[in-house]
Amino acid sequence: MKRAAVALVHYPCLDKEGRVYTTSITNLDVHDIARSARTYDVSAYYLVTPIEAQRALAESIAGFWETNIRGQKVPTRAEAMQLVRSAHTLEEVLATETELLGEAPLVVATSAREVTGAVAWPALRRRLDDAAGLVLVFGTGYGLAPEAIALADVTLKPIYGASAYNHLSVRSAAAIALDRLLSPDHADSTSS
Amino acid sequence: MKRAAVALVHYPCLDKEGRVYTTSITNLDVHDIARSARTYDVSAYYLVTPIEAQRALAESIAGFWETNIRGQKVPTRAEAMQLVRSAHTLEEVLATETELLGEAPLVVATSAREVTGAVAWPALRRRLDDAAGLVLVFGTGYGLAPEAIALADVTLKPIYGASAYNHLSVRSAAAIALDRLLSPDHADSTSS
Repeated sequence: MKRAAVALVHYPCLDKEGRVYTTSITNLDVHDIARSARTYDVSAYYLVTPIEAQRALAESIAGFWETNIRGQKVPTRAEAMQLVRSAHTLEEVLATETELLGEAPLVVATSAREVTGAVAWPALRRRLDDAAGLVLVFGTGYGLAPEAIALADVTLKPIYGASAYNHLSVRSAAAIALDRLLSPDHADSTSS
Repeated sequence: MKRAAVALVHYPCLDKEGRVYTTSITNLDVHDIARSARTYDVSAYYLVTPIEAQRALAESIAGFWETNIRGQKVPTRAEAMQLVRSAHTLEEVLATETELLGEAPLVVATSAREVTGAVAWPALRRRLDDAAGLVLVFGTGYGLAPEAIALADVTLKPIYGASAYNHLSVRSAAAIALDRLLSPDHADSTSS
C-alpha cells in the first residue's frame, strides 16, 4: 500500500437522537490521533468540518507544536502534528487523496453500530494488500451519519472487546483500528 | 482468567531527564481508560498516586458521573466510571488484587522503552490462559520508574506500529494493549 490516511469527521455526524449535526474539534483528538497516525506510518490526518473557525483551530493546534518552542522541546510531538490537515468535507479528503495517490484509495468507514454488510477486521486487513491506498474514516458525536458512510467502499464491524459494551472514545477506537489494520505484530493472524 | 485490573501509575515515574517524580492525574486518562477497561471486561481501574488531593480528584471525577444527573443521561459513561479506584501505591494495588483473587495475579508492566527480557505480545497472551488474574500496569510522564517495573512479573515489549516511532498517548497505548491481550478477535493469532 502506497499511503494511508485518517479522517476524523465532525460533520455529518449523528447526535444522541439520531439527527445530523456538527461536532466541535477536541484538542486531545488532534494530539492523540496524530500520535497514533504517526506510529502506524499514516501519511495524513484530516480534521473534517465545514466551519471555518474550527478548521483554523485545528491548524493552529497543530501549528503551535510544529513551529513553536514547544515543538523544539518535544520533537516527537511536532513530528506527529505535521500529519494534521483540515478539510471542509469528506468528499474533499477523498479527492485530495485520489490526486496524491494517482488512483482511488480504499475508503473504509468505522462504526460502533452494526451496519448491514460490515466487513470483519482480518478480512479487511487482507484486502489492504491489494489496495493502492487507504482512507480510514472515524465519526465523532454519536457516529458517522449515513451520508458519510455511503461515501465509503466498506464499513468495518464494530470493535468489541470481551463484552457487548462498545463505548470507546474515538481516540481509543482509532488507536485500536490502526493497530488491527497496520501493525506488523498481527501479520500472522491474516496470512492464513 | 478470573479477573483483570489496570493500574495507571503517577508515582514512581520518570521525567524527561530520567529522574523519578510524581505526575498529575489527567481528566481524560480517567475517562478514556475507564471506557477501554469496561470494553475489555476489566474489573477495576486504579489511579495510583501518593498525593491525597489527587486521589480525591480521581474519585470525584468518577463519582460525578456515577451519581450525578450526567451519569443518568449517559449511563454507559457511569458504567465505565464504576471501575475507577484510587490507590496510594502500586504495592497497595497488588495487595488488594491478591486479596480479591485469593492468589497472586500476574503483574505485567508496559514500557515504550526496550527492557531486557521483555516478553512479546502473543507470548504473554498465551500465558494469560494459565493465569488466575492480571494486573496490567501503565506509567505516565516518561514511563514507569525501575522500582515500579521491578514489582512486575514480566514487562511487555514496546508497542511498535509500522515505524520506529512509538510515542503513543497512554490512553492510546492502554486501548491497544487491552485489545492485543484481551480481544477475542485476536484469538486465532495465539492458538498456533
